[in-house]
Amino acid sequence: MQLQDVLIHSSVLLATSSTAYYYYYKLQSLAFLLYLVVSSTTYLAVFYMIPKIKKFTLNAGLYGKDINKKGTPEGELQIPETLGIVPATIFIIFNMVGVLYSYKQHSTSHIAFEHCAGMLSICFIIFLGFCDDVFDLPWRYKILLPNLASLPILVAYEGVTHVVLPIFLRPYLGNYVNLGILYYLYMMAVVTFCTNSINIYAGINGLEVTQSIIIACSILLYNLTELWLGEQQTFSHTISIQIILPFIFCTLGLYYYNKYPSQVFVGDTFCYWSGMVFATVGILGHFSKTLLLFFIPQILNFVYSFPQLMKIIPCPRHRLPYYNVETKKLEKVKTNLNLINLYLWIRGPLSEKDLCKELVILQISCSILGFFIRYYGAHLMF
Amino acid sequence: MQLQDVLIHSSVLLATSSTAYYYYYKLQSLAFLLYLVVSSTTYLAVFYMIPKIKKFTLNAGLYGKDINKKGTPEGELQIPETLGIVPATIFIIFNMVGVLYSYKQHSTSHIAFEHCAGMLSICFIIFLGFCDDVFDLPWRYKILLPNLASLPILVAYEGVTHVVLPIFLRPYLGNYVNLGILYYLYMMAVVTFCTNSINIYAGINGLEVTQSIIIACSILLYNLTELWLGEQQTFSHTISIQIILPFIFCTLGLYYYNKYPSQVFVGDTFCYWSGMVFATVGILGHFSKTLLLFFIPQILNFVYSFPQLMKIIPCPRHRLPYYNVETKKLEKVKTNLNLINLYLWIRGPLSEKDLCKELVILQISCSILGFFIRYYGAHLMF
Repeated sequence: MQLQDVLIHSSVLLATSSTAYYYYYKLQSLAFLLYLVVSSTTYLAVFYMIPKIKKFTLNAGLYGKDINKKGTPEGELQIPETLGIVPATIFIIFNMVGVLYSYKQHSTSHIAFEHCAGMLSICFIIFLGFCDDVFDLPWRYKILLPNLASLPILVAYEGVTHVVLPIFLRPYLGNYVNLGILYYLYMMAVVTFCTNSINIYAGINGLEVTQSIIIACSILLYNLTELWLGEQQTFSHTISIQIILPFIFCTLGLYYYNKYPSQVFVGDTFCYWSGMVFATVGILGHFSKTLLLFFIPQILNFVYSFPQLMKIIPCPRHRLPYYNVETKKLEKVKTNLNLINLYLWIRGPLSEKDLCKELVILQISCSILGFFIRYYGAHLMF
Repeated sequence: MQLQDVLIHSSVLLATSSTAYYYYYKLQSLAFLLYLVVSSTTYLAVFYMIPKIKKFTLNAGLYGKDINKKGTPEGELQIPETLGIVPATIFIIFNMVGVLYSYKQHSTSHIAFEHCAGMLSICFIIFLGFCDDVFDLPWRYKILLPNLASLPILVAYEGVTHVVLPIFLRPYLGNYVNLGILYYLYMMAVVTFCTNSINIYAGINGLEVTQSIIIACSILLYNLTELWLGEQQTFSHTISIQIILPFIFCTLGLYYYNKYPSQVFVGDTFCYWSGMVFATVGILGHFSKTLLLFFIPQILNFVYSFPQLMKIIPCPRHRLPYYNVETKKLEKVKTNLNLINLYLWIRGPLSEKDLCKELVILQISCSILGFFIRYYGAHLMF
């Protein structure tokens, strides 16, 4: 087992065993413990189904070549694309049963409504992601559609629409500002950011999946911390945990096949799906601002990529590093403005495997920083 | 304009103008009238988008040749496939806004929950239908997946689980039998039947779409009749109308391109989508038994096809009639057991256009028969 595997698996183990501990010892909730155990079966389902479905994607011509291995025999293989549909479908199926659990457990149809609305948004974005993988949709659709997909969540959202102002602004503007409809536009922006930021921070084996697992585990631990601290909104955090748990297990199943050297690629389907899951739990869990603290590498990547995304600087089709066949290492490409090339610039050439490992460490460190800002930094400002 | 067009358009006009009349004069509900007007814009959206999206499906290799025109120049054209994704996507987007309407209008999150659950089931089946078009999934997935997709509707279903017994059985068994969990299995069977029955009664230009429009208009008129008669369950019928209205307009937009001679094919996506819409409104509208009265041709087709579907008799890949290049007419193929071949057997060879027209007349006649059974026949038995 490689260091990267150890890091990923221990993150998942930490997050899920904390959940088990909390629900068993603190809440005596055997029903939720059962839910956790049942979610873990989605890992097996994904593990079992990917080899079956990858034959279909190959037959349908949905495959790609590994650009980072160009010039080697591995670079000539046809690697099945868009396998993100497998965990995404299993996730949706699991949550369809999960809606029943929400409905029975919380004895209120509003929770079930929120859960269902979240799933509708997620299911719609999976469909669009798959369409994108098959058709390669133009950008104007890609930017518009996540906004439309977010409508059900926004309808179901029953939280506040005001924001707390930082201490230094309070003498002038008061403690709160009620944003009203602007708050809904802000939530739409969160959805657009989440669905696209995973997608543009990609390009080396396993990166989309590993960053998603770390973000998901951070979200799970944040929810538990809030419940532990006895903050309000128990329901919102519970629904958020309920959605993120099967996500973690499904994605872990995909990780097995997608880690370096990738046997399958994940496609836009995966990136949209995972982004929408994060946005959904953030909004329905009422922590859409805290959510962004677990996206620090994605925010950095977005800011650094901004001039190219906006076409202020010419933007190539792929913005990958350069693969040096002789040293078998990836090297920076100065004109490709993204975090991967920036990291290689600072760190020097690295093999694809080491690069992914170090980016996982970066993601975990940024999550720890996020927790620090949330629980220490925030007190200084708010 | 051809007779078939006139029949389809007058059915839609009758159904929608009755809705307008009912909500404006009887209920003074301007909000719903506005909803009706806004739904009609989905027609324009589908009409505008199909030519744009058909380029993508052609590029992705999703096209077919028209088997019923084999041997003619038209039979050699590459006709874009799976264009059912366009009305289906626009339908989902419209209903995402529609959920907001349900939520505000009925001031109860249970109605919005039902609406959302219905959309989740429909969205999931659209995704599966599209996967089927791209991958050509084996039968074992096709049979299983609609059952899974139906779970959200079943969770949201808050109706009775008993059935009224026919008069002649009452002395022995009482007036009602409570089926409990069996009633849920029965509803799953309705979903499986609806999603597959449109798909297997297909094979000539425009048939999937025209049968769906007639069934949808019949459902709309049935809902209105029940509301008119002042039966209970106003909410259930309203939600059912709300879902079926944009369906009718979306499908009418597709009809324009799919009618004889087809410029686009609809794909399994369309058949699954329309079947699931019918099952959803039937279940959430609490009239899943009456619903089947609008499926008489589909039931006949299913019963007649049964030996071949179960592989008791060998079943070819396509069960189309034989196209006679000289007479330009379709002729029966005795070994293909479906309603199309049965009809040609009784009626003699027909051109594809006339065959579709007559099958539309058959569908309309069966709907009228269905109404007759519901309002006269049923009183004799129940």
